[in-house]
Amino acid sequence: MRTGVWFIGARGSVAVTSIVGALALRAGLTEATGCVTELPELRSPALPGFADLVLGGHDIAETPLVKKADALAAAGVVPARLVDAVHDELVALEREVRPLPSAATQALTAAAITADLVAFRERHGLDHVVVVNVATTEPVPPAHPAHADLAALRAALDASGEVLPPSSLTAYAAFGAGCAYVDFTPSTGARLPALAELARAAGVPYAGHDGKTGETLVKSVLAPMFALRNLRVRTWSGVNLLGGGDGAALAEPGANAAKTASKQRVLGETLGYQPQGTTRIDFVDDLGDFKTAWDLITFSGFLGTAMRMEFTWHGCDSALAAPLVLDLARLAAAAHRAGRSGPLPELAFFFKDPIDAGTHSFGEQWSVLTAFVRGLDGGAA
Amino acid sequence: MRTGVWFIGARGSVAVTSIVGALALRAGLTEATGCVTELPELRSPALPGFADLVLGGHDIAETPLVKKADALAAAGVVPARLVDAVHDELVALEREVRPLPSAATQALTAAAITADLVAFRERHGLDHVVVVNVATTEPVPPAHPAHADLAALRAALDASGEVLPPSSLTAYAAFGAGCAYVDFTPSTGARLPALAELARAAGVPYAGHDGKTGETLVKSVLAPMFALRNLRVRTWSGVNLLGGGDGAALAEPGANAAKTASKQRVLGETLGYQPQGTTRIDFVDDLGDFKTAWDLITFSGFLGTAMRMEFTWHGCDSALAAPLVLDLARLAAAAHRAGRSGPLPELAFFFKDPIDAGTHSFGEQWSVLTAFVRGLDGGAA
Amino acid sequence: MRTGVWFIGARGSVAVTSIVGALALRAGLTEATGCVTELPELRSPALPGFADLVLGGHDIAETPLVKKADALAAAGVVPARLVDAVHDELVALEREVRPLPSAATQALTAAAITADLVAFRERHGLDHVVVVNVATTEPVPPAHPAHADLAALRAALDASGEVLPPSSLTAYAAFGAGCAYVDFTPSTGARLPALAELARAAGVPYAGHDGKTGETLVKSVLAPMFALRNLRVRTWSGVNLLGGGDGAALAEPGANAAKTASKQRVLGETLGYQPQGTTRIDFVDDLGDFKTAWDLITFSGFLGTAMRMEFTWHGCDSALAAPLVLDLARLAAAAHRAGRSGPLPELAFFFKDPIDAGTHSFGEQWSVLTAFVRGLDGGAA
Amino acid sequence: MRTGVWFIGARGSVAVTSIVGALALRAGLTEATGCVTELPELRSPALPGFADLVLGGHDIAETPLVKKADALAAAGVVPARLVDAVHDELVALEREVRPLPSAATQALTAAAITADLVAFRERHGLDHVVVVNVATTEPVPPAHPAHADLAALRAALDASGEVLPPSSLTAYAAFGAGCAYVDFTPSTGARLPALAELARAAGVPYAGHDGKTGETLVKSVLAPMFALRNLRVRTWSGVNLLGGGDGAALAEPGANAAKTASKQRVLGETLGYQPQGTTRIDFVDDLGDFKTAWDLITFSGFLGTAMRMEFTWHGCDSALAAPLVLDLARLAAAAHRAGRSGPLPELAFFFKDPIDAGTHSFGEQWSVLTAFVRGLDGGAA
Repeated sequence: MRTGVWFIGARGSVAVTSIVGALALRAGLTEATGCVTELPELRSPALPGFADLVLGGHDIAETPLVKKADALAAAGVVPARLVDAVHDELVALEREVRPLPSAATQALTAAAITADLVAFRERHGLDHVVVVNVATTEPVPPAHPAHADLAALRAALDASGEVLPPSSLTAYAAFGAGCAYVDFTPSTGARLPALAELARAAGVPYAGHDGKTGETLVKSVLAPMFALRNLRVRTWSGVNLLGGGDGAALAEPGANAAKTASKQRVLGETLGYQPQGTTRIDFVDDLGDFKTAWDLITFSGFLGTAMRMEFTWHGCDSALAAPLVLDLARLAAAAHRAGRSGPLPELAFFFKDPIDAGTHSFGEQWSVLTAFVRGLDGGAA
Repeated sequence: MRTGVWFIGARGSVAVTSIVGALALRAGLTEATGCVTELPELRSPALPGFADLVLGGHDIAETPLVKKADALAAAGVVPARLVDAVHDELVALEREVRPLPSAATQALTAAAITADLVAFRERHGLDHVVVVNVATTEPVPPAHPAHADLAALRAALDASGEVLPPSSLTAYAAFGAGCAYVDFTPSTGARLPALAELARAAGVPYAGHDGKTGETLVKSVLAPMFALRNLRVRTWSGVNLLGGGDGAALAEPGANAAKTASKQRVLGETLGYQPQGTTRIDFVDDLGDFKTAWDLITFSGFLGTAMRMEFTWHGCDSALAAPLVLDLARLAAAAHRAGRSGPLPELAFFFKDPIDAGTHSFGEQWSVLTAFVRGLDGGAA
Repeated sequence: MRTGVWFIGARGSVAVTSIVGALALRAGLTEATGCVTELPELRSPALPGFADLVLGGHDIAETPLVKKADALAAAGVVPARLVDAVHDELVALEREVRPLPSAATQALTAAAITADLVAFRERHGLDHVVVVNVATTEPVPPAHPAHADLAALRAALDASGEVLPPSSLTAYAAFGAGCAYVDFTPSTGARLPALAELARAAGVPYAGHDGKTGETLVKSVLAPMFALRNLRVRTWSGVNLLGGGDGAALAEPGANAAKTASKQRVLGETLGYQPQGTTRIDFVDDLGDFKTAWDLITFSGFLGTAMRMEFTWHGCDSALAAPLVLDLARLAAAAHRAGRSGPLPELAFFFKDPIDAGTHSFGEQWSVLTAFVRGLDGGAA
Repeated sequence: MRTGVWFIGARGSVAVTSIVGALALRAGLTEATGCVTELPELRSPALPGFADLVLGGHDIAETPLVKKADALAAAGVVPARLVDAVHDELVALEREVRPLPSAATQALTAAAITADLVAFRERHGLDHVVVVNVATTEPVPPAHPAHADLAALRAALDASGEVLPPSSLTAYAAFGAGCAYVDFTPSTGARLPALAELARAAGVPYAGHDGKTGETLVKSVLAPMFALRNLRVRTWSGVNLLGGGDGAALAEPGANAAKTASKQRVLGETLGYQPQGTTRIDFVDDLGDFKTAWDLITFSGFLGTAMRMEFTWHGCDSALAAPLVLDLARLAAAAHRAGRSGPLPELAFFFKDPIDAGTHSFGEQWSVLTAFVRGLDGGAA
């Protein structure tokens, strides 16, 4: 079951960490720490193995993969010894990383992306290709009537002007190429009715949005704790300090708003009410690829007694994201093979803002995920 | 369904907070914040209502309930307005709080306790009585051969000397009186083979041990988070600073050891390995009834990247414990009524060190609890 | 040495806490915790005693002092027993708290304020009156050419329109009445060349700006620690979460900008370079009069080793400010008596953004302050 | 002014970090971050330059310096590029690091140490040699009557048995060799009357004890902040989690007690009273050379209002200690040259538990230190 993983943003921190990790895992040089599909409950013959993954991608940047990997090693994101060990494979992979096409109309751009994807699949004789969006977060785009209807969308894309934000255009192109799609960012991606229609028509599944890697992951286990103990959360405020490329992009007000809304949503949906407080993202260049988040939660207990909790999370987003990206590629490929099309709400476990998810409770999301993988197993047997 | 709740340690902080709360709830003066049996998923006609609860207890202390309640109000544990509102009922309740008996042999002491329980039940025409241990934590007692066998135990109790620690003697007496028993402390309580035998013979259920109210509650949701994301917890160290009577008792090395072992157990059982680090309890008198716990967790992610998390929990143990004590009394009474005898592992949700529990995952414990209550409903219909 | 203390914002949290405290201190009902003029190094016969202070003030609000004091007691800012003990004096004080005048021109408004101040001084036969601004923080006002020159200012005030922000107008009126002036807020106050000219001409001293009560106080001792150990602070980021009236005012973007700039200034001036990072103020109504600030500092040591420090400060701004307000009133009155006019840079110890201060180091500010008080002693001898 | 720096514990983390740093500074490969003698206020021609330092030492361990330096680089304590750059010099330095002598009597051991020191001085034609104790912390030794008197001590050392702990024996030997002595650890070192007598007789200065590098450094600026604001510190509790060799040694109860007492002393001496609470040191091997300390401070302000502060310090002790070790060597050599003998209380700035120091206030210690260096300047002119 040879499976392609095509990164949109292939020269960025998350993609390059995923690539170095996938190569190192294949070579048996490291353990699969952080890969949930390697937990006993999820290990399954229905999933492609690390050795079955074939890597490639698009990017508008031109930094060589080796140079980016060296920078990640210097920043403590990946071990230098692993970057050295996979050096030749990184060099060889350059030919599979192509400039993101840009043409006169969005229809033509999409056609060029689709052509790249099809060529990648045929060149390597792949059973499935999963397109994973790990590009920089976009601002929330303006609404457009063509977003609601596939026929209208096709027509609009033929005209000049930007109808779809880049993330949605790549989803459109992926579906057109018969590829599964995973959106690991808060960008719009496949989250438009016209694209849902297209995915179903094309018979391909998709998953998203916004990988749950740090502060929100913690929120998704703490909020149910308060809820199930019938404690009343009065305020929940947080600040995220981060540097690196991701930090700079999120400092842009539009992207910041998209991200922070996604971060607080879990609270209202888990608790059944929205506590006071906001989540902020501040860019502090010197912090590099590591992020420090601090949250203050005030709550009242029996007879109204006031109590409080604080936490600080000091994590490396790329190192938290990369194994989940590999998990999602494996899961989406297996779902595709099992005949699934349209959204995959069973993958809510991975996302801050999951599609069609019934619950934000981490424990329940885990139950749903294990059942999903057991279902795939059945299909694989 | 009139239900007695008999507190061992009836003049202590947890019991008096529970009593003030129960009276205030019955009078409609406060909300049931912190009571999990009032969550929609657990509300059930099978459970006795707050108005059905009849209160009483034993204590070796003689502080009047009103005086203790005033002290709790001054310390910010309960609102002064509620203490004022239930003042007359607290005074009236004095006649139901009796000195803990102490006789020439443990057999005679147990008989006196049993007699108090039977008289309480008959005096009020109660369907069931639940004995709840909220007395000061005991040191781990020396092993004794009679702990393993009921007949041997009966014989040994007739001799002079201490065969059972006080918590176990009250469990013995409770079972002898046909009462359910809940151990909210880390003391030995019903955790001896001879007592399990007695509970089954007497047809009464019991639950324990050690209410999960603060730092360990947080551990029980964070540890599964790390486990389910396949992140490797390298160290988990904590310190608990607390004053009040509970703090002074726990500062005693024997009790401290009992408590801290119970606090780290959740990690090994959830993660499948024991991370480095310890949990400490330090007594700082001036902190009073509020406890501050700080935990540092270091973990590694993909490719071994080192990350860390810290949290501070600033909670009032009595205010966290009291609603759970009421929950447990309601649940144990309903289980008794439904014909259950012996341990109630379905109540693991409430405990740091649950009896016979299959899991330390808070989410799974919740699922087990809701199923248990739905089962009671069936019996009640 | 009878000394008047006239609060601008007399019905606000800081003023009412100061008033309750001054009355309780005078009655010997409490200790002078938080009053630095009661430290052995600063105790001096040159300072008016608490019993010498006569209180009054202006406010645009109409909340009775007793009602505000009760609200502060309910919020845990002042003890209810003290509010009860000074109840009658608070009621009596109502006649000394007057509505802030507002007339057709700013010149007329100032004249009305001055008249109130003069009447207060004469009514009580006071040696000196110190006007203390504890009103809500203003946005930074637009520049105006008349700010630079006293004659031009006098002319401009006669026209209609707002030449001076309210804080500066009260400083103008105070100087006109021969009163010393203390600005405890980040508002403009006396910080205009024309007002400095006026203070010197009137022979009155003034001090400011922006009481150093919480996060910035901590900064002012930690920043020198890093500097004197030659450690390189790379980033310093913070967030302040606060409710109450002060929080709501600071949530207004203009005031927020004024305040946060003042909060980061200490870093650049102490370290000799500006580290990356910002300080944020977020309004969270439910937090009430207590403020929680969190700061993250990353720094490098020998050979560039990366290290970090975090702190959380959970303080009550009014309780921190009030004793300093009383200190400043005593010190400014003594300086006035000693013949000082114009700015009092020796009082930098009290302020985030001190006038003409040579240093932001807390230790050096303390040395300067003790020398200043010893100098006053000399004058008093 | 060629100056020898002789490390007791020359193969340990602090010494090797100091050595790598000194070599890198001499070669101009790094900045003097963390070296306070390079601050403008302390830069002085009276101090030997980095290029004037000649290094050597004793150790009982045999790990090659290069191997230790590599381990420090792997642990993130020193940059690998600097270790590589000074590799040849580290190898060459092996001949200056000798096994710590151990003979039949302590008198003979001391004589052998003295001989090594004299040979080192003569071999390199050094003006002064400073012996710096950076060996593992010892338990508090039993008292011995000979500690009080030099003649008695000399007699006792001739007998078999341990009269002096190792740190004191090296101080004895250093003084015998005419060398200055710096104790950077909490061990006894020169802190015995007999040794003070010897230092004066030999005309050599000494300084100590226990380098102030982390949590205690922070305490020494925060405690004065509370004191100078007349805030009442109610409790101050802390925990230090550390791994590495230092952590293992401090986990030994005797050493732990020595260290924690030293850590709390600053509070009582600064505040004038001892707040409740303790400081703990816990060994967590996996934390390696970095230490995480957490402190909780509760305090009351005006009218008794309860407030709190927490801080977390995440530092690398070796990287914090090493530049101060170089500072102390430079300062002690200059003091020796300037004719000082006996204790150097002016160096209290560097120590947790300074000899004869009048103050624990960091700001005042700084003033004393700058005056001391200006005094040396005068001597140097």
